[in-house]
Amino acid sequence: MDDLLDRLRAGLPAEALITDPDVTPSYAGDMAGLCPAGTPAVVVLPRTVEEVRHVMRTATALRVPVVPQGARTGLSGAANAVDGCIVLSLLRMDRILDVSPVDRTAVVEPGVVNAALSRAVAEHGLHYPPDPSSWETCTIGGNIGTASGGLCCVKYGVTAEYVLGLDVVLADGRLLSTGRRTAKGVAGYDLTRLFVGSEGTLGVVVRAVLALRPKPPVPLALAAEFASTADACAAVCAIMERGHTPSLLELMDRTTVHAVNRLGRMGLPDTTGALLLAAFDTPDPAADLAAVGELCRAAGAAAVVPADDPAESELLLQARRMSLPALEAVSTGTMIDDVCVPRSRLAEMLDGTAAVAAAHGLTIGVCAHAGDGNTHPVVCFDRTDPEETRRARAAFDAIMALGLELGGTITGEHGVGLLKREWLARELGPVGLELQRGVKQVFDPLGILNPGKVL
Amino acid sequence: MDDLLDRLRAGLPAEALITDPDVTPSYAGDMAGLCPAGTPAVVVLPRTVEEVRHVMRTATALRVPVVPQGARTGLSGAANAVDGCIVLSLLRMDRILDVSPVDRTAVVEPGVVNAALSRAVAEHGLHYPPDPSSWETCTIGGNIGTASGGLCCVKYGVTAEYVLGLDVVLADGRLLSTGRRTAKGVAGYDLTRLFVGSEGTLGVVVRAVLALRPKPPVPLALAAEFASTADACAAVCAIMERGHTPSLLELMDRTTVHAVNRLGRMGLPDTTGALLLAAFDTPDPAADLAAVGELCRAAGAAAVVPADDPAESELLLQARRMSLPALEAVSTGTMIDDVCVPRSRLAEMLDGTAAVAAAHGLTIGVCAHAGDGNTHPVVCFDRTDPEETRRARAAFDAIMALGLELGGTITGEHGVGLLKREWLARELGPVGLELQRGVKQVFDPLGILNPGKVL
Repeated sequence: MDDLLDRLRAGLPAEALITDPDVTPSYAGDMAGLCPAGTPAVVVLPRTVEEVRHVMRTATALRVPVVPQGARTGLSGAANAVDGCIVLSLLRMDRILDVSPVDRTAVVEPGVVNAALSRAVAEHGLHYPPDPSSWETCTIGGNIGTASGGLCCVKYGVTAEYVLGLDVVLADGRLLSTGRRTAKGVAGYDLTRLFVGSEGTLGVVVRAVLALRPKPPVPLALAAEFASTADACAAVCAIMERGHTPSLLELMDRTTVHAVNRLGRMGLPDTTGALLLAAFDTPDPAADLAAVGELCRAAGAAAVVPADDPAESELLLQARRMSLPALEAVSTGTMIDDVCVPRSRLAEMLDGTAAVAAAHGLTIGVCAHAGDGNTHPVVCFDRTDPEETRRARAAFDAIMALGLELGGTITGEHGVGLLKREWLARELGPVGLELQRGVKQVFDPLGILNPGKVL
Repeated sequence: MDDLLDRLRAGLPAEALITDPDVTPSYAGDMAGLCPAGTPAVVVLPRTVEEVRHVMRTATALRVPVVPQGARTGLSGAANAVDGCIVLSLLRMDRILDVSPVDRTAVVEPGVVNAALSRAVAEHGLHYPPDPSSWETCTIGGNIGTASGGLCCVKYGVTAEYVLGLDVVLADGRLLSTGRRTAKGVAGYDLTRLFVGSEGTLGVVVRAVLALRPKPPVPLALAAEFASTADACAAVCAIMERGHTPSLLELMDRTTVHAVNRLGRMGLPDTTGALLLAAFDTPDPAADLAAVGELCRAAGAAAVVPADDPAESELLLQARRMSLPALEAVSTGTMIDDVCVPRSRLAEMLDGTAAVAAAHGLTIGVCAHAGDGNTHPVVCFDRTDPEETRRARAAFDAIMALGLELGGTITGEHGVGLLKREWLARELGPVGLELQRGVKQVFDPLGILNPGKVL
């Protein structure tokens, strides 16, 4: 331990190290429920690539585990400390190094906050689409580590599609540059993509070249009320089948609508069975909304309310963004699932989730990136009640089993972390798991990078 | 050898094997110039996954190299046989297994021809964007192996962005299912993407789940004449900087325009220094073309000619699609480069390529996916003249060196194969190369899958 600190201090300024046992526990974990978090030996907050390399060289020399961290807004325990580890927080490496409107690229350090990047590129008429719900605080490095999604994905895809190139400090301190600054490139195996979603288990991202898009027109949204989630899902299928390209297509079930009204007095229709929100950032969003409104009515919508202006649209989105906090306010504990199914199976997924709630005697509210088939069932439980907590975990697991049965995945955008490790093995199967372990071994033969996560 | 054939025959129908030495040489190589191709021991054309597994089990048992092949339209020698190998042609596995308009996915076997898929999904109002110039004959499996691009990439990206999931027969015959059928998914490391562009060196793709898009409106194009490539590139930068999203943005230099006129009597402006083609498949393409035409004029265009209708647009695109055959008709030998640079450096790349042509006393015509910064300098030479052939190779190499100097990549979309193997090491550097070799080792420990390609 003293040896570790002495060695770290040899290559780091004093202010980069936190060893105070009153402070280090605050770096112990992310926002996942029910995930164990150990006690770090030390928290390091480097400002330079060279400092990160020093940390990794030291960790390799002493065989000390390293847990890389961003803003710890993750939902799967991927950033949770293990006992005696070095927590490597990249929060202070927060410079935007370059924005090029001609190349439509940005070069950033990992600690840049998602919203800070969005605002910086907007000044150049550019747009960085990935918008996880924590976008005001989460970092680009964390987004890369967890392959974050968000509300925009139905049109703009996930973080992975915006990562062109990376500089990565490897487990032994060597520096890898992978990928490109160009629009295209196929030189060798795509190691860049391998790092996206790898939750800090393969290396420490210290610089990223990101693709940007032109800033789209301000979106306009509508809300449609349905008697059931099945009807709302039929509308989702019709919208996608007819070739529409909404910039957002979100569903909130009855439980979620109630919770949002309770928390925020949003005036959502309390009697509805499911609320669908659709938005378009096209040249003529009103025309697109009119067409989509018709499809909603044909699918049985009781009411279709298009926003008259961007301000009204923003209010609808706020209601959606409030879903998670609103459901969290329902009980003392929540577990947020992240099952993604083919959108043709979405109705079955939602009906099945309601059946899981009934069978387990629990409240489960669902908000969903419906256009992607990506559901977030929020299992609400009393964390002071061990039996109910056990039931909650069982319901959480039953929802993943249902997702796999429907041809889906256990995680659309939150990642595996600690929370879903056993389930990953079920999804991948033995051949896939063996190859994934082989890949991990290539990058981290000593197993010091975020041990116990993903695999 | 007899043992190999006996073992293969035990699990394959007779018609799946070609051993006739008059026929097997026709499977020896792809369309790359100056790449060695060996003599296969046998060509196998399986129809089922089980047959492919039998081939790989046999190859592993006997340590015989296997070279997977599609339509052999590749341009880097990735499909070239090695002496004594099994050529594994996937051409007969050509079924489209599923097309889902709701999920916007297709499930296909690897031998499906790109154009056949495009037409099949168009019947459902859907669109499979990747359109390499060989799209009428090349296969989806080959497109995945080489991570193909095409004319559409400036708006729609490359093949990699459309591959959601894969079934892959591994070197030892085991079957891996990787990826997903869903719009999103982050369960474990992205092995799917690792296979895209791996040129059959990691496994044999036997099934793919592809993402589709709604069919866009019919595009409308314009042509703009410039005095120099530098002026044309300035227009490209202005178009992208202003946030336009053309579905095509192509450049042909003077040499290419001349060659196309000579071959096809296309009536292109013979006096021009560079021709720029732009197309839009937006709701109002005429308006977009008008705006882009203005930017071209501001960048010095001598003439801007918008097409009046889709038929005229198609003629312009035909001229562009004719560029490679036209340049090939100029001489007895050609080598097609594939350097991609940040688009802000495109003008330097084109000026530098002209300087390389002058310095080496060779004709080099350039057509470019200008919107992507992806150039295809075609080095023309007399293949009966060893000295000129040597000079051509030197020029080809000088162009890659220039691309790397400008922050680009040696291959934007054609892949590494045999042709660029030494250059890949330069682009990746020693750390990247070592990791890539480690990954290869995980998937193919015996080194029997397409040996000598990529790494």
